[in-house]
Amino acid sequence: MAIRGDWFYEESESWPGQAFGIRIKKILYEGKTMFQEVLVFESTDYGNVLVLDGVVQATERDEFAYQEMITHLAMMSHQNPQKVLVVGGGDGGCVREVLKHKSVQRVDLVEIDRTVIDLSLKYLPEMSKYLNGYESENQESKNDPRVHVHICDGFKYLAEHTDQYDIIISDTSDPDGPAEQLFGKNYFQLLNQALTSQGVIAMQASENIWLRLDILKSLQETCSEVFPVVNYASTCVPTYTSGQLGLLLCAKDKNTNLKQPQKSWEDVKLNNASNKYYNEKIHASSFVLPTFVKRFISN
Amino acid sequence: MAIRGDWFYEESESWPGQAFGIRIKKILYEGKTMFQEVLVFESTDYGNVLVLDGVVQATERDEFAYQEMITHLAMMSHQNPQKVLVVGGGDGGCVREVLKHKSVQRVDLVEIDRTVIDLSLKYLPEMSKYLNGYESENQESKNDPRVHVHICDGFKYLAEHTDQYDIIISDTSDPDGPAEQLFGKNYFQLLNQALTSQGVIAMQASENIWLRLDILKSLQETCSEVFPVVNYASTCVPTYTSGQLGLLLCAKDKNTNLKQPQKSWEDVKLNNASNKYYNEKIHASSFVLPTFVKRFISN
Repeated sequence: MAIRGDWFYEESESWPGQAFGIRIKKILYEGKTMFQEVLVFESTDYGNVLVLDGVVQATERDEFAYQEMITHLAMMSHQNPQKVLVVGGGDGGCVREVLKHKSVQRVDLVEIDRTVIDLSLKYLPEMSKYLNGYESENQESKNDPRVHVHICDGFKYLAEHTDQYDIIISDTSDPDGPAEQLFGKNYFQLLNQALTSQGVIAMQASENIWLRLDILKSLQETCSEVFPVVNYASTCVPTYTSGQLGLLLCAKDKNTNLKQPQKSWEDVKLNNASNKYYNEKIHASSFVLPTFVKRFISN
Repeated sequence: MAIRGDWFYEESESWPGQAFGIRIKKILYEGKTMFQEVLVFESTDYGNVLVLDGVVQATERDEFAYQEMITHLAMMSHQNPQKVLVVGGGDGGCVREVLKHKSVQRVDLVEIDRTVIDLSLKYLPEMSKYLNGYESENQESKNDPRVHVHICDGFKYLAEHTDQYDIIISDTSDPDGPAEQLFGKNYFQLLNQALTSQGVIAMQASENIWLRLDILKSLQETCSEVFPVVNYASTCVPTYTSGQLGLLLCAKDKNTNLKQPQKSWEDVKLNNASNKYYNEKIHASSFVLPTFVKRFISN
C-alpha cells in the first residue's frame, strides 16, 4: 500500500508491477487493531473505501458486484436455505444480501475484528445496516431479528458448530493477514462438518485468474479433497486487484449443481428486494472460463 | 496520464478518481505524432506497453483478452468470412487473430498513424508480426500474403469501398483523440455500406459498464439507427480502465445471431491456431449483463 499526494495505491508483493489507484478526498480512519492495519477514506468518486492490510475490501460504488455474487451464487444453488453463516464479512454486505431471501430464518456473522464492524457501521452504512445492535453477544440486529453477530475466531466458531448451516459464506480477507488459516484443508473440513447435508459454501478465492493460477489450482485441489463438488466462478469489481475476483463454490452433496440457479429469483426474494449485479443468467456465465484458465481450473 | 517515479498511471478526466498503475522498467519511446501522443515502455511485469494519448492500448501480458474477443466474436458470428477490414489496430493484434481463420482470403488494415505500426513492429513483435513488410501501399505482408496495410484515414477509406467486407473490426482508440469521428452515425453508415449482405461489425465501445452508461446507451442507440442487430459484449482486461472493455457487435442482416458462435472453432481455425481467451462458451457469456446495466443496454 502507498499513499502519494491525494492518491491511494494498492501496491503489494502479491501483485508486483501493478497498482490500482483511488483518489482520496479525506482520510476517515487510520489505525492498527490486534489483527490488521485498517484504513478508511472518503474517495472523490468511489464513495467511502475500506482497506485492510493495504488491500481494498469494499468501496461504496462497486461493493454490490462482490457482495451479491458471493452470496447469491451459493443461496441460489440451494433449494431452501434457512440457516446461514457468514465467516468474516464484518462490513455486513453479505448479511444484507442473505436477508433478501425469504427462506432465511437466521444469519450468524462471525467476525474476528470488532473494529471492522464498528467502522463499517460508521462509514459504510448501506452495507452494515443489519449489523446495527450487535454489541452484546448473540443480541439480535435492531434492523432484522434474524441477524446474530459473534465477535470471535471463525475457526473456533466452526469447531463448535456441526451439521447446522445450509449455506456458509467465507467472506475473508486475503491469506496474508488474519485469514491465513482460512485457506487450508483443516478449515475446509470444519466448513464441511458445519454444513447440513445439502449445504453449499461460497468463499472468496483470493487469487484472480490474472495472478497466480498455480495457487488457484492448488486451492481448488485442496477443496476437492473435502467437497465432492467444487467450481470456480468470478465476478468483475473495478476496485479489486486486476478488476476481477475469484469465488470458489463447494457443495457437500455430490449431486448439487452449483453452475445453474436452482430456482427463480422472483420466487425466493423477500418483498421488494432487488439486485444490481446478480441475475440468473449471470449466475451461469460467471462459471465460464477463458481458455488459458481452463488448463489450471477444471469447471 | 501521469508518470511518478517509476510508475505510469492512467489518469484521465474521463474516469476521474481512479488510475491503474503499471510499473516502468524502461521508457522505450516517447513522442508526438501528427495525430497523438505516443508512449512505449517496458514494464516490470506486463511486458512492453503501448500508450496513446495517455490511455493503455495494449500490454504484452494481457493483450490477447481484447484482441481475441473483438475479432472472434465477429468472425464466429459469420458463416464464411473471406474478406476482412480492420480500421485502426496498428498494433497488428486483430490482424493476427483474423488470420487464424482458414476462410480468410484477404485482410486490409487501415491505420492513420504510421508511427503506431512502426513502434509495434519494433516493440510488440508478437502482435505485429503479420504487418511486416507493409512499407509500400498494398504490399503484401512478408509473413502472410493475405495481409495488406494502408496508411490512411479510415473514414476516407470506407467511403471508397462499398459492399466488400464480410467482417469489419473497428479497433480504434477512444473518441477523445484522432478516432473521434469513428463513434458517430456517419461512420456507422459507411461501415454498413462497406459490408456484404451478411456482414458483421465489431467495434470497441470505449466506455465500460462502470463509467458512463448514458454514453454507452447513446452509442448503442446510434448504431441501432443504422444496423438492425446491435449487441453489447464485454471482455475482462486488467490493464484497461476498470478492468473491462465493452464491444459493440452489429449485423447488416436482421436474422444474424451475434450472441452464439455460428460454427465450431475446431472446424474453422487454420492449422495449429489456438486461443488463450476466446472459446465458444465465453462467446455467449460475454453478452450477459449485470442487472444494473440492463436498464441502459438492451441485449
